[in-house]
Amino acid sequence: MKLSLSDARALAREKLLRIGYRPEDLVSMINHLIDCELRGHGYSGLARIVSIKERHDACGPPDTQFDILRETPVSALVQGNDQIGYIVGQKVTDLAIEKATTTGLAMVGGNDTWYTGMLSFYAEQVCAQGLVAMIWSNAAPWVAPYGGTEGRFGTNPVCFGFPCGDEPVIWDIGTSEIIHAQVLQAKRLGRELPDGVAYDSNGNPTVDPEEALGGAFAAWGGHKGSGLAICVQLMGMMAGSAPLPDDMTGFAMVMVAAKPDLLRDAAEFEADVATYAQVIRDTRPVTGGPTLRMPFERSRRERGEAEARGWIEIPDEIYRTILEI
Amino acid sequence: MKLSLSDARALAREKLLRIGYRPEDLVSMINHLIDCELRGHGYSGLARIVSIKERHDACGPPDTQFDILRETPVSALVQGNDQIGYIVGQKVTDLAIEKATTTGLAMVGGNDTWYTGMLSFYAEQVCAQGLVAMIWSNAAPWVAPYGGTEGRFGTNPVCFGFPCGDEPVIWDIGTSEIIHAQVLQAKRLGRELPDGVAYDSNGNPTVDPEEALGGAFAAWGGHKGSGLAICVQLMGMMAGSAPLPDDMTGFAMVMVAAKPDLLRDAAEFEADVATYAQVIRDTRPVTGGPTLRMPFERSRRERGEAEARGWIEIPDEIYRTILEI
Repeated sequence: MKLSLSDARALAREKLLRIGYRPEDLVSMINHLIDCELRGHGYSGLARIVSIKERHDACGPPDTQFDILRETPVSALVQGNDQIGYIVGQKVTDLAIEKATTTGLAMVGGNDTWYTGMLSFYAEQVCAQGLVAMIWSNAAPWVAPYGGTEGRFGTNPVCFGFPCGDEPVIWDIGTSEIIHAQVLQAKRLGRELPDGVAYDSNGNPTVDPEEALGGAFAAWGGHKGSGLAICVQLMGMMAGSAPLPDDMTGFAMVMVAAKPDLLRDAAEFEADVATYAQVIRDTRPVTGGPTLRMPFERSRRERGEAEARGWIEIPDEIYRTILEI
Repeated sequence: MKLSLSDARALAREKLLRIGYRPEDLVSMINHLIDCELRGHGYSGLARIVSIKERHDACGPPDTQFDILRETPVSALVQGNDQIGYIVGQKVTDLAIEKATTTGLAMVGGNDTWYTGMLSFYAEQVCAQGLVAMIWSNAAPWVAPYGGTEGRFGTNPVCFGFPCGDEPVIWDIGTSEIIHAQVLQAKRLGRELPDGVAYDSNGNPTVDPEEALGGAFAAWGGHKGSGLAICVQLMGMMAGSAPLPDDMTGFAMVMVAAKPDLLRDAAEFEADVATYAQVIRDTRPVTGGPTLRMPFERSRRERGEAEARGWIEIPDEIYRTILEI
């Protein structure tokens, strides 16, 4: 199903209002979902509205309150009160930018939340203010550590962002071989998972998304990647999540924002980042391989193309399910 | 060659003094080199003294000055003035601990340096003060980004440390498939490198350490790991390194230290870290696989065993080369 960008926004708005969100909370949330679609991550885009609806059917309508706790000039904690992560994450971002702009450095946590979305969405906002961003977000134990077959951490994304004019460098990865939204999407579309990315509840390899959701996904990157996922889980715990949060509740995130001029002239730093990006692109590729690119370049290009085109495409099954809300 | 720990320390002290280091700068440096030996990383241990000697033969005797610049309540920059990284890194660590203990959060950079050593050595000190540590350290372009065959970043370690009584969780990885010290050690010992970890200067795969030093090592972890290495390079650039530092000069590092009680009760956090470590150990392993362990557990156990034993063993060739200094 092709949707114009304005129709896609209107659809998201109508359904999220129907689920119970307040109009004033929706701007960042809709921007976030549409940004996923524009960047080619449809499984985290409009399809997410179906998952949000299912979550509220199971746990009650959205609350709209959160508390700001433990505030200092360099830090704060956003207690989410089971508010969705898109809203908590935006508040964390706003506070981190405000504090780092004043003091140079800030650490802000958010907890008691779920569905934080793409960390790069927040990192872009931080970088647009000339700040460096570091973000970690944990979740329920869907993913097995390297060498294990039981879930011990979430798909646990980690993101770094470096300001560079209109072309910030943003690195945003999940630390599992497959992310939760991809497994949900495969289940909805009746598709199998790739080999080697999931275990069933008995610890046997599986390609069935339903079995994977009852078992565990595989961690990315062997023991090194698994260690990174553990660090992300511990960062979330520092912001107040339980070691093993329940499914779809009690997740947490931490953001550090820093002014580059704490350490050097900010304009010179941004110029050097641009120089470095070009040096990476100019690297001699492996024989027969494609030109190299910097993290986020593909996303930025696909978004620009989709915006110019003026429409996005979502699977018909997903569109029908959204309409039923 | 077996050496008692006191003989190993005395040997390191004698040779480093002979190279031109001041006695008052040697305590942390010798602790650092011996810690590498105790933890089973001999290529970064006493063997490093030979590389340090070669560096000073090429570039002149050690300077002993550095400057503290851009100081704020939450930050500082240690300008290394070509001082070795063991000394600059220790100063960065001391400043980060001092500032984070006061303000809760600190970012300290160090630049114009080389041979920063194991970041976990500094992270342990930060964790011992009840602080969370995050450290990045860049280097000369020895390593090719994923999809490329020319060096564009260093072996670029990244390290996170979480306080937990006597058993902090410390994750310290290099972002390349092989580290510089391992390649130097293979060259000294006349050994080949493993397959798939290096390119020669023409971009062809090589197992020859000399060719690898003239070409590039491979990045770890595909495009995700390569992106992490790029982030580490950019962190180093924020602390003032050039995008592509010359070999063995102009490296930089950044450390962030944070009090957990910015976000939650520190004692509860440490208790949760201990709980989580046990949950990881108790994970059902893959069929026939070993019990899981947390990052740093192997290092801590090997160090304890070596300390109890009272001696370390280094290759005879390395010992002879050190004696010749």
